[in-house]
Amino acid sequence: MNNFVFHNSTKVVFGKGTVGAIGDEIKNYGYKKVLFLYGGGSIKKNGVYDSVVDSLRRNSIEFVEVSGVKPNPVLSKVKEAIDVAKRENVEAILAVGGGSVIDSAKTIAAGFYYDGDIWDAFTGKYKVKKSLPIFVVLTISATGSEMNGGAVITNEDTKEKWSFWASTSFPKASIIDPTVQFSLPREQTVYGGVDAIVHVLEYYFDGSKGRKVMDRIMESIIKTIMEAIEILIDNPTNYEWRANLAWSATLALNGLTSVGSYGGDWSSHIIEHSLSALYDIAHGAGLAIVTPAWMRYVMNEDREKFERFAKEIFGKNNAEEGIEAFKGWLKKVGAPVSLKDVGISFEDVGKIAENAAIRSPFGKLKPLYKEDIIAILKLAFE
Amino acid sequence: MNNFVFHNSTKVVFGKGTVGAIGDEIKNYGYKKVLFLYGGGSIKKNGVYDSVVDSLRRNSIEFVEVSGVKPNPVLSKVKEAIDVAKRENVEAILAVGGGSVIDSAKTIAAGFYYDGDIWDAFTGKYKVKKSLPIFVVLTISATGSEMNGGAVITNEDTKEKWSFWASTSFPKASIIDPTVQFSLPREQTVYGGVDAIVHVLEYYFDGSKGRKVMDRIMESIIKTIMEAIEILIDNPTNYEWRANLAWSATLALNGLTSVGSYGGDWSSHIIEHSLSALYDIAHGAGLAIVTPAWMRYVMNEDREKFERFAKEIFGKNNAEEGIEAFKGWLKKVGAPVSLKDVGISFEDVGKIAENAAIRSPFGKLKPLYKEDIIAILKLAFE
Repeated sequence: MNNFVFHNSTKVVFGKGTVGAIGDEIKNYGYKKVLFLYGGGSIKKNGVYDSVVDSLRRNSIEFVEVSGVKPNPVLSKVKEAIDVAKRENVEAILAVGGGSVIDSAKTIAAGFYYDGDIWDAFTGKYKVKKSLPIFVVLTISATGSEMNGGAVITNEDTKEKWSFWASTSFPKASIIDPTVQFSLPREQTVYGGVDAIVHVLEYYFDGSKGRKVMDRIMESIIKTIMEAIEILIDNPTNYEWRANLAWSATLALNGLTSVGSYGGDWSSHIIEHSLSALYDIAHGAGLAIVTPAWMRYVMNEDREKFERFAKEIFGKNNAEEGIEAFKGWLKKVGAPVSLKDVGISFEDVGKIAENAAIRSPFGKLKPLYKEDIIAILKLAFE
Repeated sequence: MNNFVFHNSTKVVFGKGTVGAIGDEIKNYGYKKVLFLYGGGSIKKNGVYDSVVDSLRRNSIEFVEVSGVKPNPVLSKVKEAIDVAKRENVEAILAVGGGSVIDSAKTIAAGFYYDGDIWDAFTGKYKVKKSLPIFVVLTISATGSEMNGGAVITNEDTKEKWSFWASTSFPKASIIDPTVQFSLPREQTVYGGVDAIVHVLEYYFDGSKGRKVMDRIMESIIKTIMEAIEILIDNPTNYEWRANLAWSATLALNGLTSVGSYGGDWSSHIIEHSLSALYDIAHGAGLAIVTPAWMRYVMNEDREKFERFAKEIFGKNNAEEGIEAFKGWLKKVGAPVSLKDVGISFEDVGKIAENAAIRSPFGKLKPLYKEDIIAILKLAFE
């Protein structure tokens, strides 16, 4: 087990009927004016918007709304919101939504204190040292952004979907009310769960050794998410499974799964980010396509671990069968498993690889160069 | 899954050679003078004392030493240290030791800001609202106190071994260097592991339902601790297993296992605290005796869960066999499993039950009264 630092100061308030507590959490810190950020308006249909507004008013917290954050959130929207935050001189950001909204909030929170182009935080030119405090009401379990310091944003001009991480980006408090997710479209539940599973796999397959308790815990999270998705497809309002999916997705990327690792492999995520930057497909859908292809390409780097995965998760006897079973499961729950499934043609491989290769070599288990990325993308047509 | 709040702000610095970072952690907060608390002096033999002193000096942190904290730490020692802390006007407490030292540190930290008798925090007369900041170098994995807000202290006058919990008691930073534990006597490794297992069981068997991912994670922690103890008995310097035991013991009581529960049953702990308050036996030894007896007494309150335990942990088919297997395992690793093993006679049952019954009814799975405690203690002679 490698040395590690675990430090996660986010307060999670979890359960039925907790959305209305958001105002109290903000008031506990004494903030009186927030930027209220959300997406396409689904929160106005499912009652979350009203609960939040009511909670803010009850606690005498003034708010400025910025809506219209899209899936695969873009830099231009973030910049628009930074201007609003500065002009209105807000004291905190309230993100009500999923990973897109939360990641945008983290970027706005950092941009508030930075005079340059906040894209510098993504390229590494600027190391984020200060952020506005962030509060969250989560509406879809997937990215784990509600309990970590990471953010992923797409720069539309350069078609780069990149990330930054800062200790100042951890939300102060995140409300996770699983009942809010009862009304999610089936594919969003599936893609969210797939994203969370792949977060665990990034740490599971990064080549680190001797993480006995963590291997078991990671397998526990993966198995629970799979079971939850299978049940929620037919019973989207099953509270126990919504709750277990939600908490599992949070644990998948809150620092726990990283313990004792090399920090995760992240190849599947980086390659997928090029897919969704170029074609605007759902992140979880892209991961369902890329991850099994990546697994096949790298499995001989750590056959023992891939065999463990096969056995523990699917009761299979070898690495190949384990990966096939994973792919079969993804197909079963309705995720695309081939680039063909999302209308990408073989001729596009070069363009996608080009986009991802800007950051090569990447990957802990096997450092990937452009030719590796091309090979993986080719496997992703099967 | 019940609603819950998860909030744990302790920074854990974990791994080989991390003890020397303690001064840096304290300096990060700007503190310049600390009370340096430790126990019987084993840290002077294994090099931890020298590393800590060196790190403090390197960071120009002044320190006042108070040593001699005993296992089953007592109130009189805490009060002595509170006087020193006040007189010397320290800015923080540095606990170098196991649960006894850390729990004493938490009580001193709270007592620093309280004019009355700090025992009031244990009886509930005083709700702790403010504590000196606490820093930890852990030397034995057992209580989980390095990453939570709880403390257990024995009042020698009243023979009460009671606890308090406060959000202000979470250590700011805890150093966990598993190599420090290479030199622990065999029985301390075993008792520490047993304590951690029983922490998980308190949450596992509190009657709460629908905690799918948590059941799996709790089983992961229990299985890993068992495996670690079995190996460390013969190979005390096996780093991977020391590390896995250490991190598992921290996870056992850092809020994670509590997620979605009723807050834990705690009957085994409360009854054991009467044992160790009256007879000064090791806490882990007492738990090895009391817990299987408690399990037998309450198993019909949640047979389904006891059957799951039997199957998942021991591959057994029913609740009774699971409990017997657990008792057999405790015996195998050298823990006492009967009150006879620690020289307590049948005539003492009344006195022990009397001591525990002050706090009755307690227990979430089955609320226990004096007659229940007597029945459990009688089972603990088998």
